[in-house]
Amino acid sequence: MDFNIIKRLHKPSDKKVVLLVLDGLGGLPEKDKHKTELEAADTPNLDRLAADGICGLHMPVGPGMTPGSGPAHLALFGYDPIQYQVGRGTLAALGVGFDLKPGDVAARGNFCTIDADGDVTDRRAGRIPTETCAALCEKLNGIRVPGVEIFVQPVKEYRFLLVLRARNLSPELADTDPQQTGKPPLDPKPLSEAAEKTAYRVSEFVDQARDTLKDDHPANMVLLRGFSEKPDWPAFPDIYGLRAAAIAGYPMYRGVSKLVGMDVLGTGETLDDQIETLKAAWNDYDFFYFHVKKIDSAGEDGDFDRKVSLIEDADHDVVPKIMDLNPDVVVATGDHSTPSALAYHSWHPVPVLIWSEHCRKDPVKMFGERACIVGGLGPRIPAVELMPIAMANAGRIEKFGA
Amino acid sequence: MDFNIIKRLHKPSDKKVVLLVLDGLGGLPEKDKHKTELEAADTPNLDRLAADGICGLHMPVGPGMTPGSGPAHLALFGYDPIQYQVGRGTLAALGVGFDLKPGDVAARGNFCTIDADGDVTDRRAGRIPTETCAALCEKLNGIRVPGVEIFVQPVKEYRFLLVLRARNLSPELADTDPQQTGKPPLDPKPLSEAAEKTAYRVSEFVDQARDTLKDDHPANMVLLRGFSEKPDWPAFPDIYGLRAAAIAGYPMYRGVSKLVGMDVLGTGETLDDQIETLKAAWNDYDFFYFHVKKIDSAGEDGDFDRKVSLIEDADHDVVPKIMDLNPDVVVATGDHSTPSALAYHSWHPVPVLIWSEHCRKDPVKMFGERACIVGGLGPRIPAVELMPIAMANAGRIEKFGA
Repeated sequence: MDFNIIKRLHKPSDKKVVLLVLDGLGGLPEKDKHKTELEAADTPNLDRLAADGICGLHMPVGPGMTPGSGPAHLALFGYDPIQYQVGRGTLAALGVGFDLKPGDVAARGNFCTIDADGDVTDRRAGRIPTETCAALCEKLNGIRVPGVEIFVQPVKEYRFLLVLRARNLSPELADTDPQQTGKPPLDPKPLSEAAEKTAYRVSEFVDQARDTLKDDHPANMVLLRGFSEKPDWPAFPDIYGLRAAAIAGYPMYRGVSKLVGMDVLGTGETLDDQIETLKAAWNDYDFFYFHVKKIDSAGEDGDFDRKVSLIEDADHDVVPKIMDLNPDVVVATGDHSTPSALAYHSWHPVPVLIWSEHCRKDPVKMFGERACIVGGLGPRIPAVELMPIAMANAGRIEKFGA
Repeated sequence: MDFNIIKRLHKPSDKKVVLLVLDGLGGLPEKDKHKTELEAADTPNLDRLAADGICGLHMPVGPGMTPGSGPAHLALFGYDPIQYQVGRGTLAALGVGFDLKPGDVAARGNFCTIDADGDVTDRRAGRIPTETCAALCEKLNGIRVPGVEIFVQPVKEYRFLLVLRARNLSPELADTDPQQTGKPPLDPKPLSEAAEKTAYRVSEFVDQARDTLKDDHPANMVLLRGFSEKPDWPAFPDIYGLRAAAIAGYPMYRGVSKLVGMDVLGTGETLDDQIETLKAAWNDYDFFYFHVKKIDSAGEDGDFDRKVSLIEDADHDVVPKIMDLNPDVVVATGDHSTPSALAYHSWHPVPVLIWSEHCRKDPVKMFGERACIVGGLGPRIPAVELMPIAMANAGRIEKFGA
């Protein structure tokens, strides 16, 4: 969508929109079975919204594209993820509430384990607890590289944020993560001439980090990914002309929401915390992005039954409580598919339903991958088209032309 | 669509194409009911074409976009309405059937009310009746600006059309409408050097209008918006390589057809008049745009039953008479949806069928919003894609590449 058109046409309305994102919702059947996780789950509340709404499957990024969580969420917010690309470092910074300044270069760090030869044996350092991560970040903050301010902050478990602040930095650096075990960490290779000095400074940091962490097995080394800067994008509330709140417990999702200019509300990580936050904020916003994380984690763990059960939890514990608030438009979907059969994000389109008084019901009666194929939104609607449709259903877009 | 490709590939054929536009066709069920207007209507003739044809629903402008009639028709003619935008002045000229010449500058005028200080107190002059508007336009037609021909025509209620005709005019002028009360009308500020003289001439007109209307409270001043020229677009007959005729009774639709270079045939406003015009012109053209207006008006009036009945009239009185002429390709659709439940144009996709000998039938047996979802054209085909498909069905597009 052309944001300029929507900016020109949006109009006020008192209707409230909820975008419920069940992370990694889309799935596949287990081997030799027929039902996907969503189809196997008992979801009377989502099924009712599907029956009273319009359904389909959305493509987050494009045909055959397996999206990361950042691009997948941007697409749901209406930002073409090919045009609006954001580095992992930037997302990590926003996720932990780090106030990234223009010119800062951020990277997502992993603590990892290396052996005596310097080869990586565990890219996630045995998933050390967040407290250990915090203590190690404190140590890394002691590193000094001339001419550069360095900030290291814990994210979660083995993940941390590295920010470099100096004049004339460039984010055009390759990842140092070799993406497999048995190989040593890579050098932070400059991808342009402008990045040569930055690459040198990052190498300095990495060398000192190796030294600093040498006795901290399993977290005895760092890997850096997604060197990036804070982008300068149109803000979600300005594009759509609404007050937008994000209710998400995990840093990544809080980060991407902040990046597009939503108010990121303080909330806990449990669904109950999030529902309480939604209730308390209900009168102050027009749009709510509500994120349910754990379904994706079950998919990534390859755990079909746990994914089914977590979808059921969302259906039973979240959907009715949202509906109790009398929203005018509900969009329920996933950001991408995470089939437990693949134990990974996938390219498969994601079931989506839009429910509102005037959505024009289709014949779909059940919320599931196969049922949604014949929905009114079609089997392959680009995810970026969902926000304009939600806006239209909320009476928030003026007529185009006379 | 890229017109250059079609221009390059079109080829002659003796096959005739009819584009039947049932204005505002798409709808919604009445509250607590299930069938839309089209679904509720008894339409054996359209159903037969749907059963023998290929069906779907089209998006006139884009997801969530509610189209005006002008953009919606442009889309059906294959012109991307985002790319081919028409100024408000030009649209007003089209609407009243004013024959805009190249170089004319048109503006949409509002009669408004100003107070003793010259500040606008009502931007719509108390919505004066159209007859009052016509009388005031007659007075404004008496204004003389040296070197400029001036035309003022009533549109509806407080709205009128102003056209300036002279050498070297430019439409690059800012609106004089301050968009709020309590402020004076703005000057017609030139937005380019080329427009300075035009701005001066418009100021002359406005000053004299103020004087002419001083005793006509509440319509004692004018506001001007959307200065624009007749656009210079590729012509429909050239793009597609066919002789194209428009059979439409209402000024707006005649105007938009003329804008794209169709021959606009003389016809009355009744369906019988239009059918007679079609018959008389049958041998002289390859393509006929046939417009049925009143269905939309019933939708805009929120009258479900009348809309149903007018759809039935079109089915019984128009479709068989078109088929009697043995057309080779029939496209039957609406330009946009006008659900009586909303009493306004809406964003909902519009049912469409394409009937021809080789269209490749789909399983759709009935022409209706829900039935068409599973049609071969899909539930969300961009309206601009319909003309090329109609052309292909008429054997009018060469193979692309070897």
